[in-house]
Amino acid sequence: MSDLIERFLAGERRALSRILTRVENGTPEGREYLRQLYPRSGRAHTIGITGGAGSGKSSLTGSLASELRKRGHEVGVIAVDPSSPFTQGAILGDRIRMQDLVLDPGVFVRSMASRGALGGLAPTIDDVVAVMDAFGFPYVFIETVGAGQDEVEIAGTALTTVLVNNPGTGDDIQALKAGIIEIADVLVVNKADRPGADVLVSQLRALLSLAPSEGRDIPILSTVATTGDGVPELVDAIDEHRAWLDTSGELDRHRRQEARHQVLSVAQRILLEQIRRETSEETLGDLVGQVAGRSLDPHTAAEQLVEQGQAV
Amino acid sequence: MSDLIERFLAGERRALSRILTRVENGTPEGREYLRQLYPRSGRAHTIGITGGAGSGKSSLTGSLASELRKRGHEVGVIAVDPSSPFTQGAILGDRIRMQDLVLDPGVFVRSMASRGALGGLAPTIDDVVAVMDAFGFPYVFIETVGAGQDEVEIAGTALTTVLVNNPGTGDDIQALKAGIIEIADVLVVNKADRPGADVLVSQLRALLSLAPSEGRDIPILSTVATTGDGVPELVDAIDEHRAWLDTSGELDRHRRQEARHQVLSVAQRILLEQIRRETSEETLGDLVGQVAGRSLDPHTAAEQLVEQGQAV
Repeated sequence: MSDLIERFLAGERRALSRILTRVENGTPEGREYLRQLYPRSGRAHTIGITGGAGSGKSSLTGSLASELRKRGHEVGVIAVDPSSPFTQGAILGDRIRMQDLVLDPGVFVRSMASRGALGGLAPTIDDVVAVMDAFGFPYVFIETVGAGQDEVEIAGTALTTVLVNNPGTGDDIQALKAGIIEIADVLVVNKADRPGADVLVSQLRALLSLAPSEGRDIPILSTVATTGDGVPELVDAIDEHRAWLDTSGELDRHRRQEARHQVLSVAQRILLEQIRRETSEETLGDLVGQVAGRSLDPHTAAEQLVEQGQAV
Repeated sequence: MSDLIERFLAGERRALSRILTRVENGTPEGREYLRQLYPRSGRAHTIGITGGAGSGKSSLTGSLASELRKRGHEVGVIAVDPSSPFTQGAILGDRIRMQDLVLDPGVFVRSMASRGALGGLAPTIDDVVAVMDAFGFPYVFIETVGAGQDEVEIAGTALTTVLVNNPGTGDDIQALKAGIIEIADVLVVNKADRPGADVLVSQLRALLSLAPSEGRDIPILSTVATTGDGVPELVDAIDEHRAWLDTSGELDRHRRQEARHQVLSVAQRILLEQIRRETSEETLGDLVGQVAGRSLDPHTAAEQLVEQGQAV
């Protein structure tokens, strides 16, 4: 184990990949790696790229990575794919565009399937981010696919959340409805060479004026990811948000809030695992049968499950 | 309390509303109502109506309710709105169209905000469904707003899941990507008077032919919710799915699976509440501070939290 850590600390990409796999799978070995590497994390600027399907998030992440490479920085990218709750298979799709970047040794791309019966981000996403951070990438992008739940989760994990919109899709109104606009630190109108881009910028500005300000104006930038137009300005806006976090005291607040969320959600998983371990399949099956047969309600059954598990 | 239950059992709508509010808020009183009423549930046909924003789910739910009223059935509708994780305010929007139905005493509409820091369905949605079921509605519709996570959750709660698509929006491909098509029991092409409806039906049929069959062909129906075209056939398809559940043994499997999910998720909530109750804010704050300051990783902190909570 210490050999792999040594190679990781020497900057060897293959060691990073192997450690990421163990951490992503949540094995005891993975947790031990995380325990050792965690104190080295906390330096990266973590950036969530969110937005609806087809909004050009992959292309934009690629353009941002290219621009940061021009400025001499190494970049880590975590691409989160939705997976079917039934097949658990990742669908790669637009990841293919990322392959240009994979050939650049200054860019490290990690694809990650979302896990779990209910979809959403993998429970170990925070751990994967921490390991990429500990490796020393000054910028780590987390690109989600899809909208909704994932985007809200990513805003907890990333220091800066970039919400990507497109002209002419009505996405602006959807974003408002889902409350997603409220989690954005930077708004982007991508595909800004299409008709309706100016209208969308005005609409977004109007929406922002309705939202409560937290002592900082949220910038709205126009980009064309495929040509790189507006991308240097977007990098500047991302850097400015980080600078604001550092000077306003928001960075500490964000880190504490995220730490609290992580500790409580991991504690919840540990507790459920304990209960599952300490309850026989027969006891659980009996309670489930009573609920399914409507002779017992789910709350009373859960209370009995917890009591029985803790009495052992 | 017994007075309200008596009025509920006598079919009084106001008693239903008051009990729903208590159950939705998860108060101890609400749990006691649920405990008493749960044995009366399990008779309703619960139907989830899912699909992207703007696909016409509200109109379709309204048309389905009208058709069922013509056939002499009473109908319950639960309309789940997304709420901002920050404002917790429900945005009513297309609920307004539901108001025609509210005037019909044979239809009971309940609006429900989604709750919780991470959005998604309220944790008490299953309890609200159980109470509507216990009240005696033969049909209970659950209409979600938005896509993704909610739709997968609703497929667990509802006996029949209807996925609404529209021509010309590319929704078909998005549905495949998110694995959502796999949770559908009935597929609908709504707004079928628009161009591209036939193409979408063919695409959906092709997608279904790729998915593993579970001993039942998934029907694809075309509707125009605003005119009612195709709605009687959709009601028939929904009834046929219920009949199939009854005769195939799938009903028992579905009920057991949902009961298991509910018991475990309620147990998880109880356990977290226990930990929060048994841990001082100081202890939690100290662990959170160590994680935020990177001297402790989240897993080790969570283990310490659990151990301290259980040592009390």
